[in-house]
Amino acid sequence: MAETPQDIEELIGIMARLPGLGPRSARRAVLTLIKKRGALMRPLAETMARVAENARECVNCGNIGTGDLCDICLDVGRATGELCVVEDVADLWAMERGQAFKGRYHVLGGTLSALDDVGPEDLGIPKLRARMADEEITEVILALNATVDGQTTAHYIADELAAASVNLSSLAQGVPIGGELDYLDDGTISAALRARKRL
Amino acid sequence: MAETPQDIEELIGIMARLPGLGPRSARRAVLTLIKKRGALMRPLAETMARVAENARECVNCGNIGTGDLCDICLDVGRATGELCVVEDVADLWAMERGQAFKGRYHVLGGTLSALDDVGPEDLGIPKLRARMADEEITEVILALNATVDGQTTAHYIADELAAASVNLSSLAQGVPIGGELDYLDDGTISAALRARKRL
Repeated sequence: MAETPQDIEELIGIMARLPGLGPRSARRAVLTLIKKRGALMRPLAETMARVAENARECVNCGNIGTGDLCDICLDVGRATGELCVVEDVADLWAMERGQAFKGRYHVLGGTLSALDDVGPEDLGIPKLRARMADEEITEVILALNATVDGQTTAHYIADELAAASVNLSSLAQGVPIGGELDYLDDGTISAALRARKRL
Repeated sequence: MAETPQDIEELIGIMARLPGLGPRSARRAVLTLIKKRGALMRPLAETMARVAENARECVNCGNIGTGDLCDICLDVGRATGELCVVEDVADLWAMERGQAFKGRYHVLGGTLSALDDVGPEDLGIPKLRARMADEEITEVILALNATVDGQTTAHYIADELAAASVNLSSLAQGVPIGGELDYLDDGTISAALRARKRL
Protein backbone atom coordinates (compact mmCIF):
# COMPACT_ATOMS: atom_id res chain seq x y z
CA MET A 1 0.00 0.00 0.00
CA ALA A 2 2.44 2.60 -1.21
CA GLU A 3 -0.31 5.20 -1.40
CA THR A 4 -1.31 5.13 2.27
CA PRO A 5 0.63 7.73 4.26
CA GLN A 6 3.23 6.09 6.47
CA ASP A 7 1.76 7.34 9.76
CA ILE A 8 -1.61 5.80 8.96
CA GLU A 9 0.05 2.55 7.93
CA GLU A 10 1.96 2.54 11.22
CA LEU A 11 -1.20 3.27 13.21
CA ILE A 12 -2.97 0.33 11.55
CA GLY A 13 0.03 -1.88 12.34
CA ILE A 14 -0.05 -1.01 16.04
CA MET A 15 -3.83 -1.29 16.32
CA ALA A 16 -3.68 -4.74 14.72
CA ARG A 17 -1.60 -5.92 17.69
CA LEU A 18 -4.48 -5.34 20.12
CA PRO A 19 -6.38 -8.45 21.20
CA GLY A 20 -9.62 -8.81 19.25
CA LEU A 21 -8.39 -6.79 16.28
CA GLY A 22 -6.69 -8.13 13.17
CA PRO A 23 -5.25 -6.26 10.18
CA ARG A 24 -8.66 -5.90 8.55
CA SER A 25 -10.56 -4.70 11.59
CA ALA A 26 -7.64 -2.43 12.54
CA ARG A 27 -7.94 -0.75 9.13
CA ARG A 28 -11.67 -0.32 9.66
CA ALA A 29 -11.14 1.12 13.14
CA VAL A 30 -8.48 3.54 11.88
CA LEU A 31 -10.74 4.75 9.06
CA THR A 32 -13.52 5.38 11.58
CA LEU A 33 -11.06 7.23 13.79
CA ILE A 34 -9.87 9.41 10.91
CA LYS A 35 -13.44 10.22 9.91
CA LYS A 36 -14.20 11.22 13.49
CA ARG A 37 -10.93 12.98 14.18
CA GLY A 38 -12.30 15.63 16.51
CA ALA A 39 -14.94 13.66 18.36
CA LEU A 40 -13.15 10.34 18.71
CA MET A 41 -9.52 10.23 17.66
CA ARG A 42 -8.14 13.23 19.55
CA PRO A 43 -9.85 12.37 22.86
CA LEU A 44 -8.69 8.76 22.45
CA ALA A 45 -5.07 9.78 21.80
CA GLU A 46 -5.11 12.17 24.75
CA THR A 47 -6.73 9.76 27.20
CA MET A 48 -4.36 7.03 26.09
CA ALA A 49 -1.31 9.21 26.60
CA ARG A 50 -2.59 10.15 30.07
CA VAL A 51 -3.21 6.53 31.07
CA ALA A 52 0.17 5.46 29.65
CA GLU A 53 1.74 8.12 31.86
CA ASN A 54 -0.18 7.43 35.05
CA ALA A 55 -1.28 3.81 35.21
CA ARG A 56 0.83 1.45 37.27
CA GLU A 57 0.51 -1.82 39.10
CA CYS A 58 -0.25 -1.68 42.80
CA VAL A 59 2.88 -2.88 44.61
CA ASN A 60 0.71 -4.65 47.15
CA CYS A 61 -1.96 -6.52 45.18
CA GLY A 62 -1.13 -6.13 41.48
CA ASN A 63 -4.32 -4.21 40.62
CA ILE A 64 -3.97 -1.30 38.23
CA GLY A 65 -4.21 2.20 39.64
CA THR A 66 -2.56 5.55 39.46
CA GLY A 67 -0.31 5.41 42.51
CA ASP A 68 2.03 2.93 44.18
CA LEU A 69 -0.98 1.54 46.03
CA CYS A 70 -4.33 1.08 44.31
CA ASP A 71 -7.61 2.54 45.57
CA ILE A 72 -8.69 -0.80 47.00
CA CYS A 73 -5.51 -1.28 49.05
CA LEU A 74 -5.74 2.33 50.28
CA ASP A 75 -9.39 1.94 51.33
CA VAL A 76 -9.30 1.24 55.09
CA GLY A 77 -12.95 0.19 54.89
CA ARG A 78 -11.85 -2.84 52.90
CA ALA A 79 -9.32 -4.12 55.46
CA THR A 80 -11.76 -6.85 56.40
CA GLY A 81 -9.23 -9.65 56.72
CA GLU A 82 -10.65 -11.22 53.54
CA LEU A 83 -8.38 -11.74 50.56
CA CYS A 84 -9.64 -12.74 47.11
CA VAL A 85 -7.04 -14.37 44.85
CA VAL A 86 -7.60 -13.79 41.11
CA GLU A 87 -5.61 -14.63 38.01
CA ASP A 88 -5.75 -11.29 36.28
CA VAL A 89 -6.79 -7.66 36.71
CA ALA A 90 -9.71 -8.35 34.35
CA ASP A 91 -10.97 -10.93 36.88
CA LEU A 92 -10.61 -8.38 39.68
CA TRP A 93 -12.73 -5.94 37.67
CA ALA A 94 -15.30 -8.66 37.07
CA MET A 95 -15.45 -9.39 40.83
CA GLU A 96 -15.89 -5.66 41.51
CA ARG A 97 -18.77 -5.49 39.03
CA GLY A 98 -20.41 -8.24 41.06
CA GLN A 99 -20.30 -5.83 44.06
CA ALA A 100 -20.42 -8.73 46.51
CA PHE A 101 -16.84 -8.80 47.78
CA LYS A 102 -15.73 -6.13 50.24
CA GLY A 103 -12.20 -7.27 51.07
CA ARG A 104 -8.90 -6.93 49.24
CA TYR A 105 -7.41 -8.75 46.28
CA HIS A 106 -4.26 -10.55 45.27
CA VAL A 107 -3.64 -10.63 41.51
CA LEU A 108 -1.49 -13.59 40.46
CA GLY A 109 -0.89 -12.37 36.93
CA GLY A 110 -1.42 -15.80 35.39
CA THR A 111 -1.52 -19.48 36.27
CA LEU A 112 1.14 -22.05 37.04
CA SER A 113 2.43 -23.63 33.87
CA ALA A 114 5.28 -26.10 33.52
CA LEU A 115 5.17 -25.69 29.73
CA ASP A 116 5.54 -21.91 29.82
CA ASP A 117 7.97 -22.11 32.74
CA VAL A 118 5.71 -20.17 35.13
CA GLY A 119 6.49 -21.11 38.74
CA PRO A 120 5.05 -19.98 42.10
CA GLU A 121 7.56 -17.11 42.34
CA ASP A 122 6.40 -15.68 39.02
CA LEU A 123 2.84 -15.53 40.36
CA GLY A 124 3.74 -13.75 43.58
CA ILE A 125 2.78 -16.72 45.76
CA PRO A 126 5.60 -15.96 48.28
CA LYS A 127 4.21 -12.42 48.37
CA LEU A 128 0.75 -13.87 49.08
CA ARG A 129 2.16 -15.76 52.09
CA ALA A 130 3.80 -12.54 53.34
CA ARG A 131 0.51 -10.63 53.04
CA MET A 132 -1.31 -13.32 55.04
CA ALA A 133 0.70 -12.30 58.10
CA ASP A 134 1.04 -8.55 57.45
CA GLU A 135 -2.64 -7.90 56.84
CA GLU A 136 -4.02 -10.35 59.42
CA ILE A 137 -5.92 -12.27 56.77
CA THR A 138 -8.49 -14.67 58.18
CA GLU A 139 -10.21 -15.76 54.98
CA VAL A 140 -8.84 -16.47 51.52
CA ILE A 141 -11.21 -16.89 48.58
CA LEU A 142 -9.72 -18.51 45.49
CA ALA A 143 -11.55 -16.92 42.55
CA LEU A 144 -9.55 -18.57 39.78
CA ASN A 145 -10.99 -19.49 36.41
CA ALA A 146 -12.77 -22.84 36.18
CA THR A 147 -10.19 -24.03 33.66
CA VAL A 148 -7.64 -26.81 34.09
CA ASP A 149 -4.81 -24.27 34.60
CA GLY A 150 -6.86 -22.18 36.99
CA GLN A 151 -7.86 -25.17 39.08
CA THR A 152 -4.31 -26.56 39.14
CA THR A 153 -3.10 -23.23 40.48
CA ALA A 154 -5.95 -23.15 43.01
CA HIS A 155 -4.92 -26.62 44.29
CA TYR A 156 -1.31 -25.50 44.61
CA ILE A 157 -2.25 -22.40 46.60
CA ALA A 158 -4.63 -24.42 48.79
CA ASP A 159 -1.77 -26.81 49.63
CA GLU A 160 0.53 -23.89 50.40
CA LEU A 161 -1.95 -22.28 52.75
CA ALA A 162 -3.09 -25.51 54.42
CA ALA A 163 -0.73 -24.92 57.35
CA ALA A 164 -1.94 -21.37 57.94
CA SER A 165 -5.01 -21.01 60.11
CA VAL A 166 -7.27 -19.32 57.57
CA ASN A 167 -10.66 -20.15 56.14
CA LEU A 168 -10.00 -21.16 52.58
CA SER A 169 -12.78 -21.26 50.00
CA SER A 170 -13.32 -21.15 46.27
CA LEU A 171 -16.19 -19.76 44.19
CA ALA A 172 -19.21 -22.06 43.95
CA GLN A 173 -19.71 -23.94 40.71
CA GLY A 174 -23.19 -24.43 39.28
CA VAL A 175 -25.84 -23.11 36.93
CA PRO A 176 -25.18 -19.45 36.01
CA ILE A 177 -28.02 -16.96 36.65
CA GLY A 178 -30.30 -16.96 33.61
CA GLY A 179 -28.68 -20.17 32.38
CA GLU A 180 -30.76 -22.77 30.56
CA LEU A 181 -29.95 -26.38 31.40
CA ASP A 182 -30.29 -27.40 27.77
CA TYR A 183 -27.38 -25.14 26.81
CA LEU A 184 -25.05 -26.02 29.70
CA ASP A 185 -22.16 -28.43 29.32
CA ASP A 186 -22.24 -31.78 31.12
CA GLY A 187 -19.51 -30.81 33.59
CA THR A 188 -21.48 -27.80 34.84
CA ILE A 189 -24.67 -29.82 35.20
CA SER A 190 -22.98 -32.53 37.26
CA ALA A 191 -21.12 -29.95 39.39
CA ALA A 192 -24.45 -28.20 40.09
CA LEU A 193 -26.07 -31.50 40.99
CA ARG A 194 -23.25 -32.53 43.35
CA ALA A 195 -23.43 -29.13 45.09
CA ARG A 196 -27.25 -29.07 45.21
CA LYS A 197 -28.84 -26.95 47.93
CA ARG A 198 -31.51 -28.26 50.30
CA LEU A 199 -34.57 -26.01 50.18
CA MET B 1 -16.81 -0.08 38.84
CA ALA B 2 -15.96 2.48 41.47
CA GLU B 3 -12.48 1.02 41.91
CA THR B 4 -11.26 1.54 38.36
CA PRO B 5 -9.47 4.89 37.98
CA GLN B 6 -11.56 7.34 35.99
CA ASP B 7 -9.08 7.76 33.14
CA ILE B 8 -8.99 4.02 32.51
CA GLU B 9 -12.79 3.87 32.62
CA GLU B 10 -12.92 6.73 30.11
CA LEU B 11 -10.37 5.02 27.85
CA ILE B 12 -12.43 1.82 27.84
CA GLY B 13 -15.54 3.86 27.01
CA ILE B 14 -13.89 5.50 23.99
CA MET B 15 -12.31 2.26 22.75
CA ALA B 16 -15.70 0.54 22.93
CA ARG B 17 -16.99 2.98 20.31
CA LEU B 18 -14.59 1.64 17.67
CA PRO B 19 -16.11 -0.72 15.11
CA GLY B 20 -15.35 -4.33 15.95
CA LEU B 21 -14.89 -3.65 19.68
CA GLY B 22 -17.56 -3.84 22.37
CA PRO B 23 -17.33 -3.04 26.09
CA ARG B 24 -15.79 -6.43 26.90
CA SER B 25 -13.17 -6.48 24.15
CA ALA B 26 -12.39 -2.83 24.84
CA ARG B 27 -11.59 -3.73 28.45
CA ARG B 28 -9.37 -6.54 27.26
CA ALA B 29 -7.59 -4.27 24.79
CA VAL B 30 -7.05 -1.59 27.45
CA LEU B 31 -5.61 -4.11 29.90
CA THR B 32 -3.20 -5.33 27.22
CA LEU B 33 -2.25 -1.72 26.50
CA ILE B 34 -1.60 -0.99 30.17
CA LYS B 35 0.52 -4.09 30.53
CA LYS B 36 2.56 -3.05 27.49
CA ARG B 37 2.69 0.65 28.31
CA GLY B 38 6.13 1.31 26.88
CA ALA B 39 6.11 -0.99 23.87
CA LEU B 40 2.52 -0.55 22.74
CA MET B 41 0.48 2.13 24.48
CA ARG B 42 2.84 5.11 24.23
CA PRO B 43 3.67 4.56 20.53
CA LEU B 44 -0.03 4.08 19.83
CA ALA B 45 -1.02 7.29 21.62
CA GLU B 46 1.73 9.24 19.85
CA THR B 47 1.00 7.89 16.38
CA MET B 48 -2.70 8.49 16.91
CA ALA B 49 -2.15 12.09 17.98
CA ARG B 50 0.06 12.61 14.91
CA VAL B 51 -2.50 11.13 12.52
CA ALA B 52 -5.33 13.11 14.16
CA GLU B 53 -3.28 16.22 13.54
CA ASN B 54 -2.21 15.52 9.97
CA ALA B 55 -4.74 13.33 8.23
CA ARG B 56 -7.25 15.03 5.97
CA GLU B 57 -9.46 14.24 3.02
CA CYS B 58 -8.11 15.00 -0.42
CA VAL B 59 -10.17 17.90 -1.80
CA ASN B 60 -10.04 16.34 -5.24
CA CYS B 61 -10.85 12.64 -4.79
CA GLY B 62 -11.81 12.12 -1.12
CA ASN B 63 -8.88 9.78 -0.34
CA ILE B 64 -7.13 10.28 2.98
CA GLY B 65 -3.72 11.87 2.95
CA THR B 66 -1.66 14.44 4.76
CA GLY B 67 -2.11 17.44 2.49
CA ASP B 68 -4.93 19.14 0.58
CA LEU B 69 -4.26 16.74 -2.28
CA CYS B 70 -3.51 13.07 -1.66
CA ASP B 71 -0.43 11.26 -2.98
CA ILE B 72 -2.43 9.64 -5.77
CA CYS B 73 -3.81 12.93 -7.09
CA LEU B 74 -0.34 14.50 -6.85
CA ASP B 75 1.29 11.63 -8.77
CA VAL B 76 1.55 12.83 -12.38
CA GLY B 77 2.32 9.25 -13.43
CA ARG B 78 -1.26 8.36 -12.55
CA ALA B 79 -2.90 10.99 -14.76
CA THR B 80 -3.86 8.26 -17.20
CA GLY B 81 -7.34 9.49 -17.97
CA GLU B 82 -8.78 6.56 -16.02
CA LEU B 83 -11.01 7.21 -13.03
CA CYS B 84 -12.10 4.51 -10.60
CA VAL B 85 -15.26 5.31 -8.60
CA VAL B 86 -15.40 3.66 -5.15
CA GLU B 87 -17.80 3.92 -2.22
CA ASP B 88 -15.30 4.39 0.55
CA VAL B 89 -11.62 4.98 1.33
CA ALA B 90 -11.43 1.37 2.51
CA ASP B 91 -12.41 0.28 -1.01
CA LEU B 92 -9.75 2.55 -2.48
CA TRP B 93 -7.16 0.89 -0.23
CA ALA B 94 -8.44 -2.53 -1.32
CA MET B 95 -8.06 -1.54 -4.99
CA GLU B 96 -4.53 -0.31 -4.29
CA ARG B 97 -3.64 -3.62 -2.66
CA GLY B 98 -4.73 -5.28 -5.90
CA GLN B 99 -1.99 -3.22 -7.63
CA ALA B 100 -3.81 -3.47 -10.95
CA PHE B 101 -5.22 0.04 -11.33
CA LYS B 102 -2.89 2.86 -12.26
CA GLY B 103 -5.31 5.78 -12.65
CA ARG B 104 -6.99 8.05 -10.14
CA TYR B 105 -9.96 7.57 -7.84
CA HIS B 106 -13.20 9.23 -6.90
CA VAL B 107 -14.45 8.36 -3.42
CA LEU B 108 -18.23 8.73 -3.11
CA GLY B 109 -18.34 8.41 0.66
CA GLY B 110 -21.37 6.12 0.63
CA THR B 111 -24.23 5.02 -1.60
CA LEU B 112 -27.47 6.64 -2.69
CA SER B 113 -30.19 5.99 -0.16
CA ALA B 114 -33.70 7.41 -0.16
CA LEU B 115 -34.23 6.07 3.36
CA ASP B 116 -31.18 7.80 4.83
CA ASP B 117 -31.78 10.87 2.66
CA VAL B 118 -28.49 10.53 0.76
CA GLY B 119 -28.76 12.17 -2.67
CA PRO B 120 -26.31 12.60 -5.57
CA GLU B 121 -25.00 15.90 -4.12
CA ASP B 122 -24.04 14.18 -0.86
CA LEU B 123 -21.93 11.69 -2.80
CA GLY B 124 -20.07 14.30 -4.83
CA ILE B 125 -21.60 13.19 -8.13
CA PRO B 126 -21.67 16.79 -9.47
CA LYS B 127 -18.00 16.93 -8.51
CA LEU B 128 -17.44 13.71 -10.48
CA ARG B 129 -18.97 15.33 -13.57
CA ALA B 130 -16.69 18.36 -13.12
CA ARG B 131 -13.62 16.14 -12.84
CA MET B 132 -14.55 14.34 -16.07
CA ALA B 133 -13.89 17.55 -17.99
CA ASP B 134 -11.02 18.99 -15.89
CA GLU B 135 -8.91 15.85 -15.92
CA GLU B 136 -9.73 14.72 -19.47
CA ILE B 137 -11.10 11.41 -18.26
CA THR B 138 -11.61 8.85 -21.01
CA GLU B 139 -12.49 5.81 -18.94
CA VAL B 140 -14.58 5.44 -15.78
CA ILE B 141 -14.53 2.18 -13.84
CA LEU B 142 -17.36 1.72 -11.35
CA ALA B 143 -15.86 -0.32 -8.51
CA LEU B 144 -18.86 -0.23 -6.20
CA ASN B 145 -19.78 -3.03 -3.84
CA ALA B 146 -21.87 -5.85 -5.31
CA THR B 147 -24.71 -5.00 -2.91
CA VAL B 148 -28.16 -3.67 -3.77
CA ASP B 149 -27.19 -0.14 -2.66
CA GLY B 150 -23.87 -0.28 -4.47
CA GLN B 151 -25.45 -1.46 -7.70
CA THR B 152 -28.27 1.11 -7.49
CA THR B 153 -25.66 3.85 -7.16
CA ALA B 154 -23.67 2.37 -10.04
CA HIS B 155 -26.76 2.44 -12.26
CA TYR B 156 -27.44 6.06 -11.33
CA ILE B 157 -23.88 7.12 -12.16
CA ALA B 158 -23.95 5.13 -15.41
CA ASP B 159 -27.12 7.03 -16.43
CA GLU B 160 -25.53 10.35 -15.50
CA LEU B 161 -22.43 9.69 -17.57
CA ALA B 162 -24.22 8.14 -20.54
CA ALA B 163 -24.13 11.45 -22.44
CA ALA B 164 -20.39 11.93 -21.88
CA SER B 165 -18.12 10.21 -24.36
CA VAL B 166 -16.25 7.97 -21.93
CA ASN B 167 -15.72 4.26 -21.73
CA LEU B 168 -17.76 3.13 -18.78
CA SER B 169 -17.17 -0.24 -17.11
CA SER B 170 -17.73 -2.03 -13.85
CA LEU B 171 -15.71 -4.74 -12.09
CA ALA B 172 -16.32 -8.25 -13.42
CA GLN B 173 -18.49 -10.53 -11.32
CA GLY B 174 -17.62 -14.21 -10.99
CA VAL B 175 -15.88 -16.85 -8.96
CA PRO B 176 -13.28 -15.29 -6.60
CA ILE B 177 -9.69 -16.56 -6.86
CA GLY B 178 -9.37 -19.63 -4.65
CA GLY B 179 -13.16 -19.88 -4.41
CA GLU B 180 -14.84 -23.27 -4.22
CA LEU B 181 -18.07 -23.58 -6.18
CA ASP B 182 -19.67 -25.58 -3.41
CA TYR B 183 -19.36 -22.63 -1.02
CA LEU B 184 -20.49 -19.88 -3.42
CA ASP B 185 -24.00 -18.45 -3.40
CA ASP B 186 -26.35 -19.08 -6.31
CA GLY B 187 -26.17 -15.48 -7.53
CA THR B 188 -22.40 -15.60 -7.94
CA ILE B 189 -22.54 -18.95 -9.75
CA SER B 190 -25.12 -17.72 -12.24
CA ALA B 191 -23.27 -14.41 -12.75
CA ALA B 192 -20.07 -16.35 -13.44
CA LEU B 193 -21.90 -18.61 -15.88
CA ARG B 194 -23.50 -15.71 -17.76
CA ALA B 195 -20.10 -13.97 -18.06
CA ARG B 196 -18.25 -17.17 -19.00
CA LYS B 197 -15.03 -16.75 -20.98
CA ARG B 198 -14.32 -18.60 -24.19
CA LEU B 199 -10.99 -20.41 -23.90
